[in-house]
Amino acid sequence: MIIQLEKEIAEKDKENIIKKVRDLKYKITDVRTQKGDYLIGIGKKEFDIRDVGHMPGIADIHIVSDDYKLVSKKWKVKPTVIDLGDGITIEKGGMAIMAGPCSIEGEEQIRKTIDHLRENDVKIMRGGVYKPRSSPYSFRGLGIDGLKVWYKAAREAGIKIITEVMQVSQIEEMYEYVDIYQVGARNTQNFNLLDELGLVDKPVLIKRGISGTIDELLSSAEYVFSAGNENLMLCERGIRTYEKASRNTMDINAISILKEKSHLPVIADPSHGIGIRDHVEPIALACIMAGADGVIYETHEKPEEAYSDGQQTLDFRESARLIHKMRKVFELRESM
Amino acid sequence: MIIQLEKEIAEKDKENIIKKVRDLKYKITDVRTQKGDYLIGIGKKEFDIRDVGHMPGIADIHIVSDDYKLVSKKWKVKPTVIDLGDGITIEKGGMAIMAGPCSIEGEEQIRKTIDHLRENDVKIMRGGVYKPRSSPYSFRGLGIDGLKVWYKAAREAGIKIITEVMQVSQIEEMYEYVDIYQVGARNTQNFNLLDELGLVDKPVLIKRGISGTIDELLSSAEYVFSAGNENLMLCERGIRTYEKASRNTMDINAISILKEKSHLPVIADPSHGIGIRDHVEPIALACIMAGADGVIYETHEKPEEAYSDGQQTLDFRESARLIHKMRKVFELRESM
Amino acid sequence: MIIQLEKEIAEKDKENIIKKVRDLKYKITDVRTQKGDYLIGIGKKEFDIRDVGHMPGIADIHIVSDDYKLVSKKWKVKPTVIDLGDGITIEKGGMAIMAGPCSIEGEEQIRKTIDHLRENDVKIMRGGVYKPRSSPYSFRGLGIDGLKVWYKAAREAGIKIITEVMQVSQIEEMYEYVDIYQVGARNTQNFNLLDELGLVDKPVLIKRGISGTIDELLSSAEYVFSAGNENLMLCERGIRTYEKASRNTMDINAISILKEKSHLPVIADPSHGIGIRDHVEPIALACIMAGADGVIYETHEKPEEAYSDGQQTLDFRESARLIHKMRKVFELRESM
Amino acid sequence: MIIQLEKEIAEKDKENIIKKVRDLKYKITDVRTQKGDYLIGIGKKEFDIRDVGHMPGIADIHIVSDDYKLVSKKWKVKPTVIDLGDGITIEKGGMAIMAGPCSIEGEEQIRKTIDHLRENDVKIMRGGVYKPRSSPYSFRGLGIDGLKVWYKAAREAGIKIITEVMQVSQIEEMYEYVDIYQVGARNTQNFNLLDELGLVDKPVLIKRGISGTIDELLSSAEYVFSAGNENLMLCERGIRTYEKASRNTMDINAISILKEKSHLPVIADPSHGIGIRDHVEPIALACIMAGADGVIYETHEKPEEAYSDGQQTLDFRESARLIHKMRKVFELRESM
Repeated sequence: MIIQLEKEIAEKDKENIIKKVRDLKYKITDVRTQKGDYLIGIGKKEFDIRDVGHMPGIADIHIVSDDYKLVSKKWKVKPTVIDLGDGITIEKGGMAIMAGPCSIEGEEQIRKTIDHLRENDVKIMRGGVYKPRSSPYSFRGLGIDGLKVWYKAAREAGIKIITEVMQVSQIEEMYEYVDIYQVGARNTQNFNLLDELGLVDKPVLIKRGISGTIDELLSSAEYVFSAGNENLMLCERGIRTYEKASRNTMDINAISILKEKSHLPVIADPSHGIGIRDHVEPIALACIMAGADGVIYETHEKPEEAYSDGQQTLDFRESARLIHKMRKVFELRESM
Repeated sequence: MIIQLEKEIAEKDKENIIKKVRDLKYKITDVRTQKGDYLIGIGKKEFDIRDVGHMPGIADIHIVSDDYKLVSKKWKVKPTVIDLGDGITIEKGGMAIMAGPCSIEGEEQIRKTIDHLRENDVKIMRGGVYKPRSSPYSFRGLGIDGLKVWYKAAREAGIKIITEVMQVSQIEEMYEYVDIYQVGARNTQNFNLLDELGLVDKPVLIKRGISGTIDELLSSAEYVFSAGNENLMLCERGIRTYEKASRNTMDINAISILKEKSHLPVIADPSHGIGIRDHVEPIALACIMAGADGVIYETHEKPEEAYSDGQQTLDFRESARLIHKMRKVFELRESM
Repeated sequence: MIIQLEKEIAEKDKENIIKKVRDLKYKITDVRTQKGDYLIGIGKKEFDIRDVGHMPGIADIHIVSDDYKLVSKKWKVKPTVIDLGDGITIEKGGMAIMAGPCSIEGEEQIRKTIDHLRENDVKIMRGGVYKPRSSPYSFRGLGIDGLKVWYKAAREAGIKIITEVMQVSQIEEMYEYVDIYQVGARNTQNFNLLDELGLVDKPVLIKRGISGTIDELLSSAEYVFSAGNENLMLCERGIRTYEKASRNTMDINAISILKEKSHLPVIADPSHGIGIRDHVEPIALACIMAGADGVIYETHEKPEEAYSDGQQTLDFRESARLIHKMRKVFELRESM
Repeated sequence: MIIQLEKEIAEKDKENIIKKVRDLKYKITDVRTQKGDYLIGIGKKEFDIRDVGHMPGIADIHIVSDDYKLVSKKWKVKPTVIDLGDGITIEKGGMAIMAGPCSIEGEEQIRKTIDHLRENDVKIMRGGVYKPRSSPYSFRGLGIDGLKVWYKAAREAGIKIITEVMQVSQIEEMYEYVDIYQVGARNTQNFNLLDELGLVDKPVLIKRGISGTIDELLSSAEYVFSAGNENLMLCERGIRTYEKASRNTMDINAISILKEKSHLPVIADPSHGIGIRDHVEPIALACIMAGADGVIYETHEKPEEAYSDGQQTLDFRESARLIHKMRKVFELRESM
């Protein structure tokens, strides 16, 4: 059960509510986000919601049968809107485009990418400065210095930044230079990282784990939300299966299911979802048709020279065509 | 290597070609389809294609590095067109709709479904009379008698029939009453069935195996083709993965990849691909955007009363809306 | 529910029982095997078993909550014993060894394999004469003629034969020459084949599907059993997963779980389970320790020259060592 | 390529070697572990190993084609021995037993578990004080205070401690109180954590990721090794597959394959591998037969009252029986 408390609740009233819920043998968690105060009750006993709901200090109460509570649409029907400032939002009924290279490689690459985005009226740039790599001998990214250079150029151009954070110690270090923290597929269940991102007042995009379930993704979002940060997005990026004709298996079903289960925006990553350059476009368009609120993909002036993921990266001509088509598909979807 | 022989090739010339190919240490298979004669050479040695290609009696020669040969686009660039007669075709650049119940249940159900299809200008009806069921105690279908009743009603209405064939002995029995033989996901690698369907002069739709790879699907198609039947379609219907929030994981990637690898039409089955009624529509639309040449899905007047698969079956109102939207999405795709 | 009927039940009594069960809204299936008569009731309503159990003509009655009934240990606690004649049995508390080549290749190979088996006191020889192959251009086996040659040599040597049957029409053809029909992993859900094998009075070994669940394997066995044949074995041969370091992922868990759920003997196939020659031995020994009642594996005088599966086939020296070790491990298991 | 440098190498000689390797277009990484100095060269160009090997300052040189280098058996044939002090080692040819509860719950539970271990001559106790949980509302462990209590009791009893570390900041905090750091399945690719564990002079056990490949596990070990810590063990704990009859699918193949590929000890975790109490014993015994150098499993005085994982936890009677049997199986394995 989720109990939303009134903003000015008296301490005594809160204690009474907690006592009442404990009497039902429910385990209680006190959640204070940047937007409100909640009590989350976990238990199985059935009870009459009115017995609790009438108590002083309660703004709203919901019974949520899902394992995740605060990210469930059973509680909050109204879709979450992520506001990045400057009139840039990510939300249901919109289609956010986030494009850029797999790895940030240097000033010139940043500048050329920004030019490409501006020409196509794209407001959010993706790129990695901390790169999780299977092998310790691979390129691991330019780190904080690369981020600073990127930030300077992006701010001048009015472009927002989404980039991956890999560990707790980077959160503060990166804070000034990012608009969205991305949690990568290898960190979806890095619970300490999730806890700490709950304390930050910047949006967080959580990628589904490499073989994560839809429920696990929602529970990971619940970590961030219950630790205090409601500015959350979910990202489907393909799952690991036996099929090796593609890098991953894009779980198109997950997009439609996540939209039904949660009030959070859902972003699709077709670059990782299929992992083959020539197929990124049809998969991206399919994801929009399935209900995605945004698309994140990889583009580079010269994919064949990219430091990483070149095989799934679009060049700027392909990227421009994709942007054009995505907008048409989105327009049709919203009109039907 | 695929050698297409001239129609009136002299026996002597053919022998010479075979000898030449054997000298290259290639294993040779003589393939005679309803449309042409081919020699398929399997081997690894590199050779100068001109050494063979100039020989008398050869209409065309191709080196095909895929394990499957005749279904590969490396050999036949021109897309295959399935002609069902009466102006009804399944082909690239079209969008075939095949709709109907999971199981054929009786005359009234057939009639109502046909009425629904006609109202929405759908020309092909799906339905099962032989049902593969995990448990021997489940409903196994009305069999050949059900098919005959269905056939009569469909012919009068100008509707074509696609239905599953489960074993060799049914092929002949069903022959007069079907327009497309469907090979189900549990029979994708029933090689005897594939061999025999190669001898039939009616189209065949092959579903991908429950955990079949894309390559295995193409190799199964190769069985039918090399046994003589070029009238083939491939069908993506979701694969089995660890994710249990949906019945299967619709492999949207496979649609795009199959279109690249093969000249055969690719049909999507969103009903089995996600298995949840409320999500069939977005997945169907996504599949069209990913490049599908047609969609096969389940509809029933009263899904909750259907003998099987009710949880993933659309009612007629939902079905009509889906058909309307699919046509819009298809139109946009072709216009971009 | 499973109702075992008395052997000499009066028709009137049977009708009364059927009526009683139908009144409970249970769907009823009349099962007549080579060993007994049963009524299988499928339904959900709870009822007092004594209300049915006291009726005349009932030998025994059990409520079985599993989807499969007759193969469940909840009904039949006593393990099934497969008797191949000549004192050769497959059963709990024994360890059947079935060894031989992937494909039967000819008389000399047969003779050498038989010599090897006799030297090591192995009584059952495996080998394929009908080979299911992904590609139509691969070697598909010697067919019935190969089987006849094999049979002659095996009978003279007192060796039993297990070999794969791929389609209904082969059952009768092969009947005289096989001791165990093997259903391969691509045919686990070939329900027509299973139905027909239920009519045969020879033992059947059913391999788990390539990505089949444990429950599906048991339901496939239920097909054969309910069609009349109780002489059944189950075989774990590895499943398809994302891991490509081995050909399949041997599901060692399945061996222990199948032994708990069913009264049928469980055989392990380490050759397909891992697919790498050097690792067949440790996996075979592990399977015995996990509870397998037998092991089926591939051996060939010269694996590198085998027509198929050479990479996972033991030579005779390795095979002899494995047999020796398997017996030691089995002995320890039974003694603990 | 791996170049092991002489202990007292002259700076000039090292520079020459680096220059030589760079000339081959190999990317070079300077690795200094607690036991030695290495240069790891990553590249594809073929070269004559003698051209490099003769240079002054080189103790040994190996070409290793695997993606992982330092953990590969192609380089270091001699098995790694983990020495925990007090005569307790983990190594090939031994069988380490690590037993204890899923979660450390308090002093009494610790004491009882230690008594149980001592009665059965087990020297290493497992238990979690930091618990990674899918839901933020689940019990997350007693933390560092729990560890301190545990440590005190364990030291008095001569028992070693293995426990999970979840994030970088815990490494130092836990240092004094652990004998083996465990990296859990959700952190196998937490590369920052791996890097930092490379700087510690205590042994590390790395669990395979929830759907991690064998190669990824080895690459994760390469992270720790190349960051400086050679005291490493690998742990197979089951993988996520479509099969839901067991919690995970124990990949018995991986045990045999890891033993072949790496010189590191391989530990099996049957508790997570199957996740069902009644089946832990046969799976544990099977893992030993497949070649495991040790087993880690869950035991609790009253599994049904355990804070977590009760369904897969053995009680002390079952645990004692398992220990007894494991030793017999190990003895047989080593004697064959």
